[in-house]
Amino acid sequence: MTTPYPTSERSIELQTRLREFMETRVLPNDAVFETQLEEGPRFATPPILEELKAEARTAGLWNLFLPVDSDASRGAGLTNLEYAPLCEIMGRVAWAPEVFNCNAPDTGNMEVLARYGTPEQQERWLQPLLAGEARSCFAMTEPEVASSDATNIEASIRRDGEEYVIDGHKWWVTQSPRAECAISVFMGKTDPSAERHLQQSMILVPMDADGVEVVRALDVFGYDSAPEGHGEVRYRDVRVPAENLLLGEGRGFEIAQGRLGPGRIHHCMRLIGVAERALEEMRERANVRVAFNGPLSEKGALRHQVAECRVAIDQARLLTLHAAHRMDEVGNKAARREIAMIKVVAPRMACAVLDRAIQVHGAAGVGPDHWLARAYAHARTLRLADGPDEVHLESLAKLEFRAT
Amino acid sequence: MTTPYPTSERSIELQTRLREFMETRVLPNDAVFETQLEEGPRFATPPILEELKAEARTAGLWNLFLPVDSDASRGAGLTNLEYAPLCEIMGRVAWAPEVFNCNAPDTGNMEVLARYGTPEQQERWLQPLLAGEARSCFAMTEPEVASSDATNIEASIRRDGEEYVIDGHKWWVTQSPRAECAISVFMGKTDPSAERHLQQSMILVPMDADGVEVVRALDVFGYDSAPEGHGEVRYRDVRVPAENLLLGEGRGFEIAQGRLGPGRIHHCMRLIGVAERALEEMRERANVRVAFNGPLSEKGALRHQVAECRVAIDQARLLTLHAAHRMDEVGNKAARREIAMIKVVAPRMACAVLDRAIQVHGAAGVGPDHWLARAYAHARTLRLADGPDEVHLESLAKLEFRAT
Amino acid sequence: MTTPYPTSERSIELQTRLREFMETRVLPNDAVFETQLEEGPRFATPPILEELKAEARTAGLWNLFLPVDSDASRGAGLTNLEYAPLCEIMGRVAWAPEVFNCNAPDTGNMEVLARYGTPEQQERWLQPLLAGEARSCFAMTEPEVASSDATNIEASIRRDGEEYVIDGHKWWVTQSPRAECAISVFMGKTDPSAERHLQQSMILVPMDADGVEVVRALDVFGYDSAPEGHGEVRYRDVRVPAENLLLGEGRGFEIAQGRLGPGRIHHCMRLIGVAERALEEMRERANVRVAFNGPLSEKGALRHQVAECRVAIDQARLLTLHAAHRMDEVGNKAARREIAMIKVVAPRMACAVLDRAIQVHGAAGVGPDHWLARAYAHARTLRLADGPDEVHLESLAKLEFRAT
Amino acid sequence: MTTPYPTSERSIELQTRLREFMETRVLPNDAVFETQLEEGPRFATPPILEELKAEARTAGLWNLFLPVDSDASRGAGLTNLEYAPLCEIMGRVAWAPEVFNCNAPDTGNMEVLARYGTPEQQERWLQPLLAGEARSCFAMTEPEVASSDATNIEASIRRDGEEYVIDGHKWWVTQSPRAECAISVFMGKTDPSAERHLQQSMILVPMDADGVEVVRALDVFGYDSAPEGHGEVRYRDVRVPAENLLLGEGRGFEIAQGRLGPGRIHHCMRLIGVAERALEEMRERANVRVAFNGPLSEKGALRHQVAECRVAIDQARLLTLHAAHRMDEVGNKAARREIAMIKVVAPRMACAVLDRAIQVHGAAGVGPDHWLARAYAHARTLRLADGPDEVHLESLAKLEFRAT
Repeated sequence: MTTPYPTSERSIELQTRLREFMETRVLPNDAVFETQLEEGPRFATPPILEELKAEARTAGLWNLFLPVDSDASRGAGLTNLEYAPLCEIMGRVAWAPEVFNCNAPDTGNMEVLARYGTPEQQERWLQPLLAGEARSCFAMTEPEVASSDATNIEASIRRDGEEYVIDGHKWWVTQSPRAECAISVFMGKTDPSAERHLQQSMILVPMDADGVEVVRALDVFGYDSAPEGHGEVRYRDVRVPAENLLLGEGRGFEIAQGRLGPGRIHHCMRLIGVAERALEEMRERANVRVAFNGPLSEKGALRHQVAECRVAIDQARLLTLHAAHRMDEVGNKAARREIAMIKVVAPRMACAVLDRAIQVHGAAGVGPDHWLARAYAHARTLRLADGPDEVHLESLAKLEFRAT
Repeated sequence: MTTPYPTSERSIELQTRLREFMETRVLPNDAVFETQLEEGPRFATPPILEELKAEARTAGLWNLFLPVDSDASRGAGLTNLEYAPLCEIMGRVAWAPEVFNCNAPDTGNMEVLARYGTPEQQERWLQPLLAGEARSCFAMTEPEVASSDATNIEASIRRDGEEYVIDGHKWWVTQSPRAECAISVFMGKTDPSAERHLQQSMILVPMDADGVEVVRALDVFGYDSAPEGHGEVRYRDVRVPAENLLLGEGRGFEIAQGRLGPGRIHHCMRLIGVAERALEEMRERANVRVAFNGPLSEKGALRHQVAECRVAIDQARLLTLHAAHRMDEVGNKAARREIAMIKVVAPRMACAVLDRAIQVHGAAGVGPDHWLARAYAHARTLRLADGPDEVHLESLAKLEFRAT
Repeated sequence: MTTPYPTSERSIELQTRLREFMETRVLPNDAVFETQLEEGPRFATPPILEELKAEARTAGLWNLFLPVDSDASRGAGLTNLEYAPLCEIMGRVAWAPEVFNCNAPDTGNMEVLARYGTPEQQERWLQPLLAGEARSCFAMTEPEVASSDATNIEASIRRDGEEYVIDGHKWWVTQSPRAECAISVFMGKTDPSAERHLQQSMILVPMDADGVEVVRALDVFGYDSAPEGHGEVRYRDVRVPAENLLLGEGRGFEIAQGRLGPGRIHHCMRLIGVAERALEEMRERANVRVAFNGPLSEKGALRHQVAECRVAIDQARLLTLHAAHRMDEVGNKAARREIAMIKVVAPRMACAVLDRAIQVHGAAGVGPDHWLARAYAHARTLRLADGPDEVHLESLAKLEFRAT
Repeated sequence: MTTPYPTSERSIELQTRLREFMETRVLPNDAVFETQLEEGPRFATPPILEELKAEARTAGLWNLFLPVDSDASRGAGLTNLEYAPLCEIMGRVAWAPEVFNCNAPDTGNMEVLARYGTPEQQERWLQPLLAGEARSCFAMTEPEVASSDATNIEASIRRDGEEYVIDGHKWWVTQSPRAECAISVFMGKTDPSAERHLQQSMILVPMDADGVEVVRALDVFGYDSAPEGHGEVRYRDVRVPAENLLLGEGRGFEIAQGRLGPGRIHHCMRLIGVAERALEEMRERANVRVAFNGPLSEKGALRHQVAECRVAIDQARLLTLHAAHRMDEVGNKAARREIAMIKVVAPRMACAVLDRAIQVHGAAGVGPDHWLARAYAHARTLRLADGPDEVHLESLAKLEFRAT
């Protein structure tokens, strides 16, 4: 698909180099990555990843996600529209984004720190993240409440002199089980008596602080999502200096809103890459697999499915680019309709394309020798993460009826 | 929705004026149009239409469809991308496109004549069409064969000295029943023994020629589609001068391919307008209609449907604009994938949105007091006209597997 | 499909005879019926219908719908389960049910009269209906309110001495435009101040009473549904004797509930017949139509659609039979879950099967030479009539959550 | 749902006892089972399972699957229709069927041995299986070919004197990794030059025979399906006595056809149980989870989904019962249409219901604390196992077009 929006030469040049890096460095090392993961400690960075990170950084394929409105010296300074095709390319391999320091949830956390952090916070926490030397997590979701409604969050952040005392039970804290995870961005209530959207705050909690315990890593479907993992984390009487608070008391909801926009669309960009690759594999399999007097690629029903996948992917990509463009033009808040739309469309599309690709692969499609089922599990999760479909549909309905 | 592609100032200015014309001249005369149609001869131009045509022409809102690669002196000289939002605006009212001389099948026939016609053919037939003084039809589909496969067309165009003798049984010849229909572009075989794609030719056949008989007007889901109508037409031993042939013997298939690209996308542009208006009416109805303790607009399931409609419309619009852009950039032939995609997507989307809007309107939705059921009938037809979904999906599959 | 439930010999014998009557008397006269309708007064019984009615009555294929709990001397005394396959067979041709005096809304009205009518009411109104000598209509839906919520009905039935005075604006009063329509069962409020479900009453209003005006016949999509038609009816200061009231003041809602159960399932039974015939025609068309190097019946995508239609039809039939069986066993009220389910499933299924059949027929499918588009319009209406899908889904949800 | 078909008292009595056993013995031991599995050797029977098996056998809840046409002394002698509700009840918990010795693939293998085995084969292999003292596997699918088309199977069974020599590469051999797995029913070619459907044979191959190697256990999505597991198995020069052949050379295809009918429908019966339980959990979760001003159970869109699940489950159950009834009445071969239908419907339905239930559970739905994602992985697999959807749809299409 030609890029429907005029793209800068910079983005095009980066796409070329990124594609080449993926072909020559990432894909050929996919098996190495898996083997090292199998052999090494499960939730720790496999050596090949560090090697490739160093190479990518040297090649200038680093921190591509950091938007133009942040301090350009830190990142690539690309617009969302420029970044979208790059993010799609990285998305084709599950572990590739980290090679370029463009993986969730670190990207979101870096954005938060770049945007709202004090110079001290940036010095202490942002720099290592930008350098790819530390990893981070985002502690928001709680098992006891419907966290899709962020006002439900019940963890407590209590001021006590020059410190805050943190108590909470979180889960689906991506990357918290990882050995290299240094810091968590923690959301909780500083003032339960305040107006609904002003009760929450965000605060930086080092993972090695007393009282922080990663209880276990949670499987998604049966996958452990190593090396990052999704942790269940208990925070018990954890004390951090008051200056660890982000932006100010009661502004947690506001930060969450700002953080989630780019995070959501990055997921979507990556899912386009996933789906595109799934379609490629579907075609390849259909070409070589023979049943009932001919290759699967000659069966009419399968051919229509291939066509439907093409249509669904291209439509999702156009909407992703459109949303990125809107974010660049009018800002994340004014572009919330477009973000909501793509957040509903892309995971659903990816699930559907992956499901069809699985079916064409037969039993191999659900098994361990192919990446399809694992990708499905991840895509399915994204119909829940960062707001379930239902919440985004309701937001869209609200905007529609407001327009009446 | 902001236009995702940079649009020319010219298009924006035309959109503003066109929207205003629709609001102040077309919509307020909708009832007048219906009444005149009811009272006057069924398949003839209602007076109000002629009045509005004159106004639109004076206002420079005329022949907007004629693309930039045609002689600019005749039309607006807009690119497909510039034309798309204009066409969407006109599409909101079923009979509006003709007000601006932008209605099918005249647009397609004008394009064929502008592109392939001899100076004499243009003088004789194109000029009155461009002036909105005559109307035309396109005689391709035949009842006896699956015309979705154009090589099946069986009508005969036989050379006999300085004349061609035409014989054929056509149907779904849109606008043929209309009093003002002066000319038909007729497709048939000049050489049944030639290679499959070189058997067909196109020729101009005046509707008043001896042997041309409009047997009847065909209803679409009970609607007669007046004033244009869809005719069943018999051509029996019809003789026309040899110079009425278009482009040359054996080139009918080639013309059809060129003709259908823009025709297909214009239908899609209009369907976006139809769907957008249906969604507006759906919201309005939901706001005022009360059942089971509250307005329908507060029912969660309906709200999700409204959101889904929004997503579907915006995705279809983006794909339409993308296809238009590709046609401008690489030409109709190279853009055939994008055209095939939108030809599958837009009618299906419009049917789905209209169906939901009908449901929200209750019995009123299927009845004569609302335009929804009529629009559904038309949109449903477009899953068949200019190639059924299945043919486009197969084309897409072919392109996909070729890419492997 | 073999009948999954043990069926009585009586039902099987009737099925055989009914099928034969359909094949030898109804289908061969389909064209005659259409011609007479075209030529005669539009909303009046075509002579062929009267002929066939006489034959059917003589053959004992008459009033088959009347259930076993009514006075058996009047009808066939079949259970719902015994009647279901018969109703399916009749449903294959749109006008066939009336041949056997089994058409809506007369069946519903006859049931109401048989169940709730006084001997005088039965003598005066039921007898001619049972004899097929008069026709009737049911005046419930109103244009101004969401009639899906029956408590919204606003028409007034006011007691004035020995009379009731009726005022109301009704529409979608099926059969009211018909010349032979003698009586309307009218629903309105006798006591607007009563408890919500006790405000409504039903009363018998002769169509020739002063103040009853059939304003117009309403098209469904573009079809006028002749000979019965759907009328918009004004009741202005209509006076009827007090004894015309059915069952008692405030019991209109109760009667409506009782009436709608069988009415709903009869529609579903007929739709199974419609869908089955559509699938037959789809297969036949696919066998003879050739495109792109072979008959459509060899295209894999179409073959899967045929299979999906078979699955959908058989599932809907099983659910219909199950609902019928439940009604026989536990009564209409206790079987409301099964009735709600089939009322959602059958029209949706029929629409989907008809839509696919239309697609296989190409342009012919939406046109006047085939019954498919007309049947689609009717099936689509049944997603609204007797309660829109949404109301039934909500009823089902209520029952589910009650079960928790 | 009341049973739509008349069920024997025997089945009803067994249902009552089985339901009670599930409630009092199986469900309360679910956690014990998981813990023992976690602690013990992964692919071996957890002690609790043996305990419960002994109890079930004593209670007469044993070998319920063995149909009436087998020697009744061995099994329960129930018809398929009688067995269906029992199988649904067991299906509610993934590991429960084995408690009653009714789990795949042992059931299928027992049926094959009961039907086609020689007295010696039955004595040696069937008895321990019937007693629940040994386990078995079925080695059919091969990684190198599309095994959905059984004629593709390439493994070799070569006669050599009084022995057969077996070579083949199989995978998705369910239960082969299990410690207790004693015997495999192996499919391969005895005569590659024979007519397509006569090339294959089946033979009994002990798992401890020289040359049999379970290379690895295959994960489904990320689940290892312990304790049974799905193995990749290499057979290299394995020699077994000639009398291990089943039925005769060239009859493998015939046995496979016979074996798969009951196997397919048992999977479907269990999936009904899975879906029913998923819907229960969906409702329960919706009742207690609060977001955006109320419990999820009050959100209209979710309520409609609950209703749609109910409809889908009940329709699938009716079709399952119908297919079972047909198998009882006309035999597995004549009932192949009904079996094909339910094999397409049930896994698709279960996937859809589970997917909705997952969505209502939020992140918990895809995680390790709930059985939903695991059940989804299994149900998804059943759209491939025992013939992918596409093969069954094509079979249905063939039957439809034959009927024309």
